[in-house]
Amino acid sequence: MPYVNIKITDEGVTREQKKQLIAGVTEVLQKTLGKNPKTTTVVIDEINVDNWGMGGLPVPEFRETLKQS
Amino acid sequence: MPYVNIKITDEGVTREQKKQLIAGVTEVLQKTLGKNPKTTTVVIDEINVDNWGMGGLPVPEFRETLKQS
Amino acid sequence: MPYVNIKITDEGVTREQKKQLIAGVTEVLQKTLGKNPKTTTVVIDEINVDNWGMGGLPVPEFRETLKQS
Amino acid sequence: MPYVNIKITDEGVTREQKKQLIAGVTEVLQKTLGKNPKTTTVVIDEINVDNWGMGGLPVPEFRETLKQS
Amino acid sequence: MPYVNIKITDEGVTREQKKQLIAGVTEVLQKTLGKNPKTTTVVIDEINVDNWGMGGLPVPEFRETLKQS
Amino acid sequence: MPYVNIKITDEGVTREQKKQLIAGVTEVLQKTLGKNPKTTTVVIDEINVDNWGMGGLPVPEFRETLKQS
Repeated sequence: MPYVNIKITDEGVTREQKKQLIAGVTEVLQKTLGKNPKTTTVVIDEINVDNWGMGGLPVPEFRETLKQS
Repeated sequence: MPYVNIKITDEGVTREQKKQLIAGVTEVLQKTLGKNPKTTTVVIDEINVDNWGMGGLPVPEFRETLKQS
Repeated sequence: MPYVNIKITDEGVTREQKKQLIAGVTEVLQKTLGKNPKTTTVVIDEINVDNWGMGGLPVPEFRETLKQS
Repeated sequence: MPYVNIKITDEGVTREQKKQLIAGVTEVLQKTLGKNPKTTTVVIDEINVDNWGMGGLPVPEFRETLKQS
Repeated sequence: MPYVNIKITDEGVTREQKKQLIAGVTEVLQKTLGKNPKTTTVVIDEINVDNWGMGGLPVPEFRETLKQS
Repeated sequence: MPYVNIKITDEGVTREQKKQLIAGVTEVLQKTLGKNPKTTTVVIDEINVDNWGMGGLPVPEFRETLKQS
């Protein structure tokens, strides 16, 4: 019955990678808590980089500051 | 004041159906808890089937396994 | 497969009322979109009134303003 | 380490406004709780007006009722 | 920068198991998408079984139906 | 109509601080997007430090690694 929501930036994640995320996270819940994969829900939200803030800045600007530091 | 978030797969839900979901869920909260519809927020997220996992698989593959079982 | 998250203030909601919320919302999804109740997840979060803001105020203060208006 | 999720209707919010939302919310957390901006995450979800319900209606219809009241 | 929210029923998950969930999910994101563990946030919500619905029923009643089927 | 969810670690945030968070975030939305405070919802979730992971570790252990680096 677990519900897992993964929010990542929308930067070209492939279908295959999403498959791996779903399989990997489901396996962690099965191994750690014995949860039944059949009732484990995983939802991936891909967020535009302009809609994701870190350090008080949108991701593109935040990454610029990291390059300069 | 309730906030309800409905996550469903992005499979052609019509505007009329969304209206019914909003009306129906708001009515449940009003009837059950006496909540004021005017301050009841309902947000519907439509998720790409490749971004929704069940049974450790993306929905399309998961549905395939159901057909074969 | 739908996932529904209901956030309400933590003000003595009874177990029976939670049962009605779960049943009612699941029914709306079944009637509106034909979703299978067996794979419909409903999670209810009860939030302390001090942790819920409206009108820029915590709920208790916000309700006071409504009484005075 | 705070995580802030802002859900707003998808009505032409500019990139500059998103920058201000991220900066403003991050500053509130820094000033109020001394949280480090570098580990403060802000995610903005823009929701289609047909997917957002108030008063048991989608936003466009809800706003119509406000005009007539 | 990923943000992962895991919702599970509140049924005696140990601190050690939470550690394994956090480590396991973070590793999946690192291996699959090359995400930096240091900026990967994982939040675990433990939900009372009466607040979690499946099949239109709270979890305890839902499990009863599974035993009888 | 905005809905803002703030997740922070459960480390003694006072009622007054929650008031400031609610007021501050509501003001940011009003100033930036002209949103009406009366229909702006802010919900604060306080998360046990053992349920919050960074760097693949629960917060207490993660902070230890920061001290030693």
